[in-house]
Amino acid sequence: MTRPEPPRRGDYKFFCNIQTRWSDNDMFGHVNNVEYYRFFELAVVEFLMRAGEVDLMSDPVVPFAAESLCRFRRPLSWPHPVTAALRVEQLGTSSVRYGIALFEEDSDEPAAEGHWVHVFVTRADQRPTPIPDALRAMFERHR
Amino acid sequence: MTRPEPPRRGDYKFFCNIQTRWSDNDMFGHVNNVEYYRFFELAVVEFLMRAGEVDLMSDPVVPFAAESLCRFRRPLSWPHPVTAALRVEQLGTSSVRYGIALFEEDSDEPAAEGHWVHVFVTRADQRPTPIPDALRAMFERHR
Amino acid sequence: MTRPEPPRRGDYKFFCNIQTRWSDNDMFGHVNNVEYYRFFELAVVEFLMRAGEVDLMSDPVVPFAAESLCRFRRPLSWPHPVTAALRVEQLGTSSVRYGIALFEEDSDEPAAEGHWVHVFVTRADQRPTPIPDALRAMFERHR
Amino acid sequence: MTRPEPPRRGDYKFFCNIQTRWSDNDMFGHVNNVEYYRFFELAVVEFLMRAGEVDLMSDPVVPFAAESLCRFRRPLSWPHPVTAALRVEQLGTSSVRYGIALFEEDSDEPAAEGHWVHVFVTRADQRPTPIPDALRAMFERHR
Repeated sequence: MTRPEPPRRGDYKFFCNIQTRWSDNDMFGHVNNVEYYRFFELAVVEFLMRAGEVDLMSDPVVPFAAESLCRFRRPLSWPHPVTAALRVEQLGTSSVRYGIALFEEDSDEPAAEGHWVHVFVTRADQRPTPIPDALRAMFERHR
Repeated sequence: MTRPEPPRRGDYKFFCNIQTRWSDNDMFGHVNNVEYYRFFELAVVEFLMRAGEVDLMSDPVVPFAAESLCRFRRPLSWPHPVTAALRVEQLGTSSVRYGIALFEEDSDEPAAEGHWVHVFVTRADQRPTPIPDALRAMFERHR
Repeated sequence: MTRPEPPRRGDYKFFCNIQTRWSDNDMFGHVNNVEYYRFFELAVVEFLMRAGEVDLMSDPVVPFAAESLCRFRRPLSWPHPVTAALRVEQLGTSSVRYGIALFEEDSDEPAAEGHWVHVFVTRADQRPTPIPDALRAMFERHR
Repeated sequence: MTRPEPPRRGDYKFFCNIQTRWSDNDMFGHVNNVEYYRFFELAVVEFLMRAGEVDLMSDPVVPFAAESLCRFRRPLSWPHPVTAALRVEQLGTSSVRYGIALFEEDSDEPAAEGHWVHVFVTRADQRPTPIPDALRAMFERHR
């Protein structure tokens, strides 16, 4: 299976430093693959909170994860810190796709990259609803 | 974004019962999205161990995760158990793609489904190597 | 440091089977010490729910963890299942101390044992309040 | 149950900053009690690595956790960072007890405090062995 050229740090718009934990490493001595999605989640939540002022626990319109994907290129390992990088790749009426990459320390080549799709729903009835204007404008700025 | 029709239980070949834990639920009261990959991982590891007699910690040829993807369709929640279902979707010289779905209790519609790609490498030098014959035959039986 | 004789299965009143996960094992190849408390938590939550019909998310009086302790005696390891065993050791006006042990499969000697203290508070103001009568009666039956 | 006066920051000798993660919070909206032990573990591992140059994966003498305890005093919550603080409380021939506390940001009162006991064993046969001299000297400096 061929894979596309990986993106670089400069291709992203939002960055988030992540401290690794001893317990992130698994029996192989590297950060467990599942934890990469934990790092994706942390980047997405920080992005929405810091850049979008989203309050996941009380806003009337909230995002639900619809899909995520990760391509693993090289191992990450505690005790080395990680930088998660994010950009908006697709923007629909009620959904957004973030491109996300994880970089180890100074590296310009991602250890992993992929995406995360959010669908916005009303908290009350969980049905898809258009992304609120202020949030849409923020997403446009991070394309 | 349109999504393909989800598969059903009968489309899979290997099954694994998973007990959920209170702590799998996140602040939204459902199993956290990241944990879905934990369940994928558990299904893949059980499949390799039980159907393929793979020993991840000592075999000379070992699988490395190259990519995974999950489409989230409906929430899973502790205390309800989950069935993980797996089939072989693509089989290359040194790589295999498993299709995986998660079902809640009696449901025939998956709560989530996606895939996981393994590339086989030699433990000594971490370079891709053909899938061993016995394992390849097992994979063929689970297509 | 000397340690008391460990209790046996027959010393407990409530039992809960726990499926281990590949990822419970850490870099040493055994269940990570922190996960023992995860198993304690699962036992306590199942006990309150199944034996006490407690609904942690909606009852007006809810338990808060005040203290926990674990003595690690021998390793637990995926893929072996674990039995968590619980009994009520101390019962105060608004607090209860559960004794908890973890057994691997058929073993009668605990791999680990310790305790967990719950203080009951009113959900509204988070202040200690007497344990509700029905729950207290249930606790008495599990001494 | 009465509890001893909690220690303060100034009572400790080694400090470690911990970034919380969204997923550390549980259904109650606070850091899950089990994760406090994750933070204890991170503090102990960083202490041994940074102050003691211990290599857990290759040294001939390695520490095994024998006991841990935590008293929970007030909630910690993502997104607030945590400081873990550690001191040596007891030092035996082959065992050491660390006192550990977790502080939220600028607070001088611990959100939680407790201990962690390590017994040193030879990697080869897993039997208790005296703490190596250099490590013992380091422990003495952190009393």
